[in-house]
Amino acid sequence: MFLKNRLSRKSVRKMNKFDLNSYLSSKRKQIDTALGIIIDNNSKDSTIRDAMKHSLMASGKRLRPILCVAAADAVGNHSNPTIRTACAIEMIHTYSLIHDDLPAMDNDTLRRGQPTCHIKFDEATAILAGDALLTLAFEILSSVNAADTDRGALNRLRVINTIARAAGCNGMIEGQMQDIAAEGKVLGLEDLKKMHRLKTGALIEASVISGTILGNGNRDQIEKLKNYARNIGLAFQITDDILNVEGDPDIMGKDVGTDQSRGKSTYPSILGMEKSKKFARKLVNDALKVLDYFDNKADPLRAIAHYIVVRNK
Amino acid sequence: MFLKNRLSRKSVRKMNKFDLNSYLSSKRKQIDTALGIIIDNNSKDSTIRDAMKHSLMASGKRLRPILCVAAADAVGNHSNPTIRTACAIEMIHTYSLIHDDLPAMDNDTLRRGQPTCHIKFDEATAILAGDALLTLAFEILSSVNAADTDRGALNRLRVINTIARAAGCNGMIEGQMQDIAAEGKVLGLEDLKKMHRLKTGALIEASVISGTILGNGNRDQIEKLKNYARNIGLAFQITDDILNVEGDPDIMGKDVGTDQSRGKSTYPSILGMEKSKKFARKLVNDALKVLDYFDNKADPLRAIAHYIVVRNK
Repeated sequence: MFLKNRLSRKSVRKMNKFDLNSYLSSKRKQIDTALGIIIDNNSKDSTIRDAMKHSLMASGKRLRPILCVAAADAVGNHSNPTIRTACAIEMIHTYSLIHDDLPAMDNDTLRRGQPTCHIKFDEATAILAGDALLTLAFEILSSVNAADTDRGALNRLRVINTIARAAGCNGMIEGQMQDIAAEGKVLGLEDLKKMHRLKTGALIEASVISGTILGNGNRDQIEKLKNYARNIGLAFQITDDILNVEGDPDIMGKDVGTDQSRGKSTYPSILGMEKSKKFARKLVNDALKVLDYFDNKADPLRAIAHYIVVRNK
Repeated sequence: MFLKNRLSRKSVRKMNKFDLNSYLSSKRKQIDTALGIIIDNNSKDSTIRDAMKHSLMASGKRLRPILCVAAADAVGNHSNPTIRTACAIEMIHTYSLIHDDLPAMDNDTLRRGQPTCHIKFDEATAILAGDALLTLAFEILSSVNAADTDRGALNRLRVINTIARAAGCNGMIEGQMQDIAAEGKVLGLEDLKKMHRLKTGALIEASVISGTILGNGNRDQIEKLKNYARNIGLAFQITDDILNVEGDPDIMGKDVGTDQSRGKSTYPSILGMEKSKKFARKLVNDALKVLDYFDNKADPLRAIAHYIVVRNK
């Protein structure tokens, strides 16, 4: 235990030397460029493309794709397939936002500082733009070049499967169902954790696992980084809940105070604000401890864990 | 030309000996059983699973999955991966029906003899059940067993890519966008063909191509069966339009006369009923001519082409 704590402090020191802002901004730029190329090369000039672009290219944190790339870096080297996989994950995240924002669900009007897709276009177009982003993600994940060989193809199938499972009816979609069912009800802490583990945690985990597989990580590394991802995924959601109370809507590009007005159970509403913040910090520390088993190639993952709880949007 | 006609007559004779009804009913049973197992094994007991099952397990023609299996049979032998791929295609077809039926789109209340998903459940659940079926399809297509090797994995990526492209923003989804935009407008024949090629033709083509790839068909066979699929896909849509005028709603399990009441352009509305029927027969004959290059393992495909235009639902 003492050793672990010492290692963890070493991680924190390492992390502080790492320039996270430059890293995040360079990765964001790389991902935004790749997303722009993918959307322009893979869809014809049409209303559906405009709607997909509207939601996808609005400024986002790009947390999931950056985690995918950073996980690949932590175990090996990232490559073009990693960037494309990272982009596919961001497309799936964006599709889920478009559908969650629909009138039949959260009925939100503002997202990433822009009108939501069904406000900017219409409901039918928003439903189809979400469907199209989800489908394009799998098209990108499965694209085959003339030069590709069977070698590595099985790992690519594993990545597709990991992402599909996380996004599906035992992951993100079940989480959204539980979220809708919970509106107006008071949840216990365990139910809230379970719901968020599905709704946001599953795709964050899949992002990290996919990157680890593509970086040729071994089984042990995959297991450890899955643990890392689980901790930061939960910390991410707690911070989201905190920002919904204390955040600045101008910085965040979305409304605040919405959880309370909708009667949603949140970490602050169940644990109180101070205990929620402490819980998030504990989870980040647990995530950092897992990373003690990795060398300095995991510095981006260390810095991201820290960023998760100190971000203001 | 004479030879081609003679070969085509030979195909028709061959086809008549083939017991299509037994074939279709045995394949439907096989696919229904596999779909039931997949949905029970891959989703927890929950509302979202009930909604997915409601739409997926309602009696359907299962045309696309049967075409996938029949194409694999025509070039080689179908196998377990072919049945699973066939099931995934049916899930994608069902997701598209659930979303097309939504109030924001066609606002239909009856489908496959059952209340549509948003009527039986609610709108949010129907949107998410569609999303979940689409996602589960890709989970099934990418599932990897411990015994799997890299060999064949590249072909499986090709199949996923073929299906995703057909279902996406340059295929089925763009077709649905064009269909919505066309409501109340009078379309020309070429625009109508283009719209249907995307909306229904693309996934029918992908079903046949996927089966051909999984049956280890060569490039020439893929090209020929793609041509076959294009012809029967269009013939299928024309027959759908005809049945929307002349069909029996009790047999079809859905309302008739809806195209006219919505002011939709259809083949009968543009060409007239007799010319539409003649056009559908010509397309089937063209499809049969393509099959002259295949032996009697393609009999199911021959019989299905015939069935496309004589069906009553």
